[in-house]
Amino acid sequence: MEKIHELQQQFAAFLDTVDLMGTPKGLYEPVAYTVLQQGKRMRPMLCLLANDLFGGKLEDALYPALALETAHNFTLIHDDIMDQAPLRRGKETVYKKWDANTAILSGDAAIFMAYQFAQRTPRPAETVALLSKVMLEVCEGQQYDMDFESQAVVSIPEYLEMIRLKTAVLLATSLEMGAVVAGASEADRRHVYDFGIALGMAFQLMDDLLDCYSDVKVFGKVTGGDIVENKKTMMLLKALELGSDEDRHCLDALYASGQTMEAQEKIARVLAVYDRLHVKEAVERLMAEYYREADRCLDLVNQPEERKKPLRAYAAMLSGRNK
Amino acid sequence: MEKIHELQQQFAAFLDTVDLMGTPKGLYEPVAYTVLQQGKRMRPMLCLLANDLFGGKLEDALYPALALETAHNFTLIHDDIMDQAPLRRGKETVYKKWDANTAILSGDAAIFMAYQFAQRTPRPAETVALLSKVMLEVCEGQQYDMDFESQAVVSIPEYLEMIRLKTAVLLATSLEMGAVVAGASEADRRHVYDFGIALGMAFQLMDDLLDCYSDVKVFGKVTGGDIVENKKTMMLLKALELGSDEDRHCLDALYASGQTMEAQEKIARVLAVYDRLHVKEAVERLMAEYYREADRCLDLVNQPEERKKPLRAYAAMLSGRNK
Repeated sequence: MEKIHELQQQFAAFLDTVDLMGTPKGLYEPVAYTVLQQGKRMRPMLCLLANDLFGGKLEDALYPALALETAHNFTLIHDDIMDQAPLRRGKETVYKKWDANTAILSGDAAIFMAYQFAQRTPRPAETVALLSKVMLEVCEGQQYDMDFESQAVVSIPEYLEMIRLKTAVLLATSLEMGAVVAGASEADRRHVYDFGIALGMAFQLMDDLLDCYSDVKVFGKVTGGDIVENKKTMMLLKALELGSDEDRHCLDALYASGQTMEAQEKIARVLAVYDRLHVKEAVERLMAEYYREADRCLDLVNQPEERKKPLRAYAAMLSGRNK
Repeated sequence: MEKIHELQQQFAAFLDTVDLMGTPKGLYEPVAYTVLQQGKRMRPMLCLLANDLFGGKLEDALYPALALETAHNFTLIHDDIMDQAPLRRGKETVYKKWDANTAILSGDAAIFMAYQFAQRTPRPAETVALLSKVMLEVCEGQQYDMDFESQAVVSIPEYLEMIRLKTAVLLATSLEMGAVVAGASEADRRHVYDFGIALGMAFQLMDDLLDCYSDVKVFGKVTGGDIVENKKTMMLLKALELGSDEDRHCLDALYASGQTMEAQEKIARVLAVYDRLHVKEAVERLMAEYYREADRCLDLVNQPEERKKPLRAYAAMLSGRNK
């Protein structure tokens, strides 16, 4: 859609004008390396689209949008140390390309840069307050995710709360920040925030699902990675919910198999259980509910439908519903 | 001095009323563990003393003071990972008591909590802007410090700039934040900031000196730790400046000796060179200059001398000049 493409171009052009480098180079280079990578830039886009929805000025929202992208990259830089991840977006992580200490310190620098960007707007107190609140929540989500690794049983509500904090709140806050910059009402701020939460939940469920069924060439990740790593995703939790005692016993044994079973064998056996229990369809139904919820939230926004179209189109684009 | 004691009591009483815990416990417990330790609380004290100097209200400065203490603890939590330090203030570091991942994530949470505290004052935009600026500088200082480890030659100006960023700016900003909260003039903000820079430089030089000459029972650190770790402190840089080619050659050889020489032997030999070159006296002279500079900066503050006394007394107390 034209508006989406236009804002993407404008954000890219703006990014070209921002100097992310400073001295010492060793501190700023890894930040610039990460922030300037060609990601989806979903958070800045949601901020700019929300700002546009409420008739805000583009120039007031560009730095807050950059703040959100930088803050998001801060979480990636630190998460990749914790996960010892070598690759991200098909490129070496800061942790791998440099080292853990560099990733800690450059990540720290990134967040302070993000705060400085967040202040470069006519309502700095509000944007900064939003940033602190959401980033603390993202930390909470990451802690729950880490806690779940050693937690024997994770309930579906616990899992949903974790992905809400780890993924959805930052998307929701990106929208709210755009709305705040545009001077939207409290009620409308809340509606776009809730729209973002629902969208974020759906996206994370899609991620869980694609890990099991996607084409590695399209998705860029090895199919079944979550299964090999024993991650408690919605796929597993749904299977445990839908299955019989025997199914649960079988899945527990497979997930406890550790290194004794070949990865491909383990993936195939787990997927066989998922297929038999129609887990894919169950997770798709839950995703669809979140998409409907997102639509309902956007319906409530006090703006003409015409103005909402770019945001609806962007959400559809990201969800693959427009394909 | 009465005012100092009074503010220390008031800050401690305030801290008792603040709930640092949240859920998940695994995220917040290491933050509370660190922030509630009995340190000198120099940064909150400088903030409260500066606020008092300009007739500010105590209750407006308490949260900014806590923000500074929390931000300082954030740097300690992350620095201890980078240094793999087991102990801090005689207690286990977060890195050691928990693990590196916990220290990364809880450190991150600490900084977002610090921002939330910094906002709880009538001038949030200014306090938050100060916090972002200073924390980015502290990251720069830490990066220079890390860079110096592998840098063959470090000049004295480079070293001074490193300790300015790593140590002095946060003390200076603590004073400035107190002044800002009290509504001090731009000029007076600058004067207390400069006072803090000079004080911070002197403190760091004292640290460098005490590493060589202090009583382990008083200082709580092993004498000569910096020498064993080949750290480029002002003691070494002064010795390299004052010594002959032969002295420099001798020091280079000692610092290059790695694990081949007993620690005590190495310390004794390095200190023998320092003594011969009167390095201690040279560093003491530089410290004295910074203390005089600090006094001069405080002289410039547009307040009656009577009001400045607590801050002067506090600086003297920390510098050991009142003993």
